Amino acid sequence: MKKKTKPMKLKPIGIIHSPFSQTDGIPIQPVFAQGYEGTVEVYSEFEEALLDLEGFERIWLLYWFDRASQFRAKVKPYMDDRWHGLFATRAPSRPNPIGLSCVKLLSIEANIIHVSDIDILDGTPLLDIKPYARKFDCFEVKRNGWLDTADKGNTESDNRFYNNEKKARDTK
Amino acid sequence: MKKKTKPMKLKPIGIIHSPFSQTDGIPIQPVFAQGYEGTVEVYSEFEEALLDLEGFERIWLLYWFDRASQFRAKVKPYMDDRWHGLFATRAPSRPNPIGLSCVKLLSIEANIIHVSDIDILDGTPLLDIKPYARKFDCFEVKRNGWLDTADKGNTESDNRFYNNEKKARDTK
Repeated sequence: MKKKTKPMKLKPIGIIHSPFSQTDGIPIQPVFAQGYEGTVEVYSEFEEALLDLEGFERIWLLYWFDRASQFRAKVKPYMDDRWHGLFATRAPSRPNPIGLSCVKLLSIEANIIHVSDIDILDGTPLLDIKPYARKFDCFEVKRNGWLDTADKGNTESDNRFYNNEKKARDTK
Repeated sequence: MKKKTKPMKLKPIGIIHSPFSQTDGIPIQPVFAQGYEGTVEVYSEFEEALLDLEGFERIWLLYWFDRASQFRAKVKPYMDDRWHGLFATRAPSRPNPIGLSCVKLLSIEANIIHVSDIDILDGTPLLDIKPYARKFDCFEVKRNGWLDTADKGNTESDNRFYNNEKKARDTK
C-alpha cells in the first residue's frame, strides 16, 4: 500500500566537470573510463565536510542524470541486445534519475576533488559523495544476471537514453 | 561557480520493510546485517521494470533517510572516536539524505523483493534499485582512509544521527 511521504527535495552540492560534453561516446561505467580525468567542484559551503576524504582510494559520486530521457520500464542496454527491466540495468532513464559512479580519487585542493575513471557528463549536478570501502562495497558475487551472458561489447554510450528536447525531464 | 539547476524532485517508488522500527541498534552496513531479512515493496506501476533483476545475487537499494537529523559538516561515526568530514563517512545526516545499501536478493514475487543483509529502517521510502555487478562495483582498493585505523568496533547504530523532533528533516 502506498505510504504518504513528505516531499523529498534535492539540492545540488556541486558540479561535476568532465571531458564529456556530448551524450554520445561516454564510457558507460568507471571501469571502462580508465585514464579519463575530471574534477568535482563541491560548493564552498560543503568544503568542511570533505575532511579526511583524501585517505580513500576511490569514492562514490551520486549525481542527477539531468539530460536523461523519461522513465521506461524496459530498456535495451548498451551491453546486450535483449530487453531488460530498467531496474536490472544501470541505464539513466530511471523514475528517480540518480547516477552512481565509483571514481578514483587523485587529490583534493580546497573544494576541488581531482578524479579519474570518470563516466559522467560535463556539468552534471552533484548530490552526494560517499567513501568507497572495500569491506562495505566489494562483494565477490557469483551471479550477475544478464551481464554474465551479455552479447554486446559496447563500453560507450550512444543517445538512446538521452534527449535533446527543449524541456529536459528534470523540469517535469 | 554555482550553476543554476532546475528543480530535482524525487518520488518514492516503493517502501522498504525491515525488522528495524527503532533508530537504535540497527546494523550500520549490510556486511554487519547477515541473516536479517526484509522486503522491498515496489509500487505496482514500476513492477514491469523488475524484469530480469532476479538473476542478480545482490542489488543496490537507494533510499531516503527520512528520519535522519540535519546535515552536519563533521561527524563522529559509529566506528571511530575521531571527528571526520561527513563526506568521508556513510552517516545519514547528509545534505541530500540518500542511503545506499547493497543487500542480498533472495527472491521476487510480483512487486515484492525478498532480501537479506538489510540495514535499513522499517518504512523507509525507496528511490531506486540497481543491479550489483562485480565488474562495475567491486574494487579491491588498498586504502580505505580512516576506516583502516578505526578505533571502535561498533557495528550497530545509536541515535546520534537521528532525531525524534516533531518536524523531521524531510519537511524542511
